[in-house]
Amino acid sequence: MSGILYLLPSPIGGPLDAALPPDVIAIARRIQHFLVENAKSARAFLKLLEHSTPMLELSIVEIGHAPRDEQIAGWLAPLQRGADMAIVSEAGCPAIADPGATLVAAAHRNGWRVVPLVGPSAIVLALMAGGLNGQRFRFVGYLPIATDERATAVRALERESRTGETQVFIETPYRNITLFDTLLTHCSETTRLAVATGLTSDDAFIAQHTVGEWRDRRTDTHGHLTKRPAVFSLLAMRG
Amino acid sequence: MSGILYLLPSPIGGPLDAALPPDVIAIARRIQHFLVENAKSARAFLKLLEHSTPMLELSIVEIGHAPRDEQIAGWLAPLQRGADMAIVSEAGCPAIADPGATLVAAAHRNGWRVVPLVGPSAIVLALMAGGLNGQRFRFVGYLPIATDERATAVRALERESRTGETQVFIETPYRNITLFDTLLTHCSETTRLAVATGLTSDDAFIAQHTVGEWRDRRTDTHGHLTKRPAVFSLLAMRG
Repeated sequence: MSGILYLLPSPIGGPLDAALPPDVIAIARRIQHFLVENAKSARAFLKLLEHSTPMLELSIVEIGHAPRDEQIAGWLAPLQRGADMAIVSEAGCPAIADPGATLVAAAHRNGWRVVPLVGPSAIVLALMAGGLNGQRFRFVGYLPIATDERATAVRALERESRTGETQVFIETPYRNITLFDTLLTHCSETTRLAVATGLTSDDAFIAQHTVGEWRDRRTDTHGHLTKRPAVFSLLAMRG
Repeated sequence: MSGILYLLPSPIGGPLDAALPPDVIAIARRIQHFLVENAKSARAFLKLLEHSTPMLELSIVEIGHAPRDEQIAGWLAPLQRGADMAIVSEAGCPAIADPGATLVAAAHRNGWRVVPLVGPSAIVLALMAGGLNGQRFRFVGYLPIATDERATAVRALERESRTGETQVFIETPYRNITLFDTLLTHCSETTRLAVATGLTSDDAFIAQHTVGEWRDRRTDTHGHLTKRPAVFSLLAMRG
């Protein structure tokens, strides 16, 4: 009988006990084969989990962002032999805004069992706590970096959101302030914007205001946006 | 000092220990004021949690799907008095494909702290395990019920997904088979479709195939689609 491919989320900043259910930790401790976004952070996670096997005896394979089919076939071979495996991303849920989906697709093609485990997703936490429309939403990942393209993307997202669909996007710590300022410059003052950083940690910052209100607290907000990845959600007035 | 408005997820079918981290359970057990989608299922959840207060002494308020502003102001009054509150949906994450967002928005307007807790989201679990594109996706909720409108919606979703954006939607148990058959009838045979039911339970069914492949296993799949809510994800070949 073939093994199970688990999708194992990892903490996104807060403590392990705020991130993973006991059954998920128990499963993770039993697994010997890990397919990971980043080996260093995966080892830190396994140490935090108090994995029962010495680290050097575990198989920890970095999967990169664009694995080739023949690599994937080799990596998943333990499944065929009956061993369980887990995909682990640097933080949060594997295969969502993170690598892993091509491996999952390969497992399905082989008819192997795929089991997703409960854990923190910054997107879901930000969406729950943002108070915008959670009945319909769209996750677009990162926006373009170039100034003009970023502004164009922001305007397109605002336009799209006039149908009532919340637009969710993320940014890396050192570009957060630039993106935030771009949003305040290019969006209508009645558009509602939710900002979330430090999710699951005690000093999380989660707030929702209209763009007009954010403009009045722009510099205060910059302090919350340094050094931590952020999730932004946008919802314009119905157009 | 005002209280905290927690977003408290609840199990979606599996056991509590597979659904919630210990810190989340500890927070839930301390809260005395619950704003819930359904009082009966909320009481069952609180019993499962072994809440430390007798059920009759807890405040459990049903929020409905379209609460009025003056109702919301009354319901959230304990926050102003310094008491913590939690929003709980029937299953899964509150405010995502479930009520709660208008209450969260009201809390933000008052400057009260909003804290999302980790727990099961059927959408995220299905997306992780579906193996389609998790870098860009869109959740559209339920599709129309009328035959023609449903077919039109399915074709529109398939078209949209040709940009590389996974389209995610849900259905109630007794309409799953009809929706599944509509997808097989109206989508191109190369379009990839992931189906997930019974997430977090031992007899979960999670598979991804092309529509052509699904057509060959149509009747076998019907058995997995009865009696349980399902999450569908669709990704057509790049157009």
